[in-house]
Amino acid sequence: MSTTIKAISPDPTLFNKTLTFQETSKSSRETVIYIHGGAWNDPSNTPNDFNSLANVIKSMDVESNICQFSMEYRLSPEITNPRNLYDVVANITRLVKEKGLTSLNIVGHSVGATFIWQILSVLKHPQENMNEAQLQMLDLLRTVKRVFLLDGIYSLKELLEEYPQYDCFTKLAFPDGIQMYEEEPSIVMSHVKKALFRFHVDMHVVHSYRDELLSLRQTNSLIACLQNYQINFRLYLDDLGLHNDVYKNDKVAKYIFDNTH
Amino acid sequence: MSTTIKAISPDPTLFNKTLTFQETSKSSRETVIYIHGGAWNDPSNTPNDFNSLANVIKSMDVESNICQFSMEYRLSPEITNPRNLYDVVANITRLVKEKGLTSLNIVGHSVGATFIWQILSVLKHPQENMNEAQLQMLDLLRTVKRVFLLDGIYSLKELLEEYPQYDCFTKLAFPDGIQMYEEEPSIVMSHVKKALFRFHVDMHVVHSYRDELLSLRQTNSLIACLQNYQINFRLYLDDLGLHNDVYKNDKVAKYIFDNTH
Repeated sequence: MSTTIKAISPDPTLFNKTLTFQETSKSSRETVIYIHGGAWNDPSNTPNDFNSLANVIKSMDVESNICQFSMEYRLSPEITNPRNLYDVVANITRLVKEKGLTSLNIVGHSVGATFIWQILSVLKHPQENMNEAQLQMLDLLRTVKRVFLLDGIYSLKELLEEYPQYDCFTKLAFPDGIQMYEEEPSIVMSHVKKALFRFHVDMHVVHSYRDELLSLRQTNSLIACLQNYQINFRLYLDDLGLHNDVYKNDKVAKYIFDNTH
Repeated sequence: MSTTIKAISPDPTLFNKTLTFQETSKSSRETVIYIHGGAWNDPSNTPNDFNSLANVIKSMDVESNICQFSMEYRLSPEITNPRNLYDVVANITRLVKEKGLTSLNIVGHSVGATFIWQILSVLKHPQENMNEAQLQMLDLLRTVKRVFLLDGIYSLKELLEEYPQYDCFTKLAFPDGIQMYEEEPSIVMSHVKKALFRFHVDMHVVHSYRDELLSLRQTNSLIACLQNYQINFRLYLDDLGLHNDVYKNDKVAKYIFDNTH
């Protein structure tokens, strides 16, 4: 499969790069949108991370029901959180409008999963106080059917408790301190519950036993919080390779495909 | 859909009742086998528990890929563990032979899930010491593709710690004490891991937030053990109704159907 990077809109005022793996067609009923990780700052993680996974899904999708795109966003220290999140949201929003997408399956790896978690938390802002990006998130949720959180970071507080050395990159994304991260699960859970229920979003949490950069703690802590609020979710644990192998793993591709139609 | 109870074999020396929901055909590629619960002793739980769930699956199975059967077994105090388990195993074994079944998806509710857990633990017996029922379990595992454990009991020790009053029924099934239950997860986990790996069995653990008879403790304790041994599994938590509604729940039917082809 050849892949091409397409600039979806010429607007130079917004950062705007989308990698198209599998183009939409009239018959496409499901869209998979990928958000890569890389600790908010690592240029070696790019939309191309999902090349091989998208290829595997394309090969399984004999009926051509699925289209697939991968999102780009600016990194730290050039920009800080939540600007990187706003890049992602603006890009997905534009893509949804231009292509007329109606059924989104958003897959995020590592901080890509963090972005998804932040989008799911948007209802913590009263709607009358929402900025444009937050209103876009709210609008986006109406078209989201499923989210797949792969080896994600959800609690920055617990991340630095477990890995104090990771402040080398959290400092870049959150120069004023991790208290600027407003989506600690224990704080936003009631709003996430409301969003999942209101917009009928299914949540899939995935983690690799062999992840050497993130232990199971983030995922276990998240699912304990989800249980406290009786939020429905699905969890898939397996040996899915090292942290930066998860997004290339064939079992992950099959899991996403099997749950996307 | 009309359902008929069929005595699959006339052998009067073995307890043998199988409820056929959806008959096998040449085109059937997947078989779903149900094992009901009922605390080993409750006559109000029967193979018919799964009537409506099997109906829903049948209605989704437009290509008739699936056949469905529900197993009966004798109850306590007439018999004690593991004789009830042996009833189940003998019945499934006969069914598999008579129908030439090759791809089993075994669904167990409550102690039906316990039986599945016991079958998965069979490798704890050295093969040369296995009795006939244990050899049948070993043989059965070769045809099992997936197991679905619905609101199950896995650790009797923890069950009685949490619910001391449940000794009213564990005493009937284990009159010599729960130490006769040989499949405590913490003890058999390495053998279960070996069985899942050797026979390529996928494990699905399901629990209802609204279960009033079994809290999440059994399921959480099981998945903690599974994690300790890095065993791959899928977990689905949702409001699936009260304990005795789970096996009639449409979301459970959809979950099983979606994961059975």
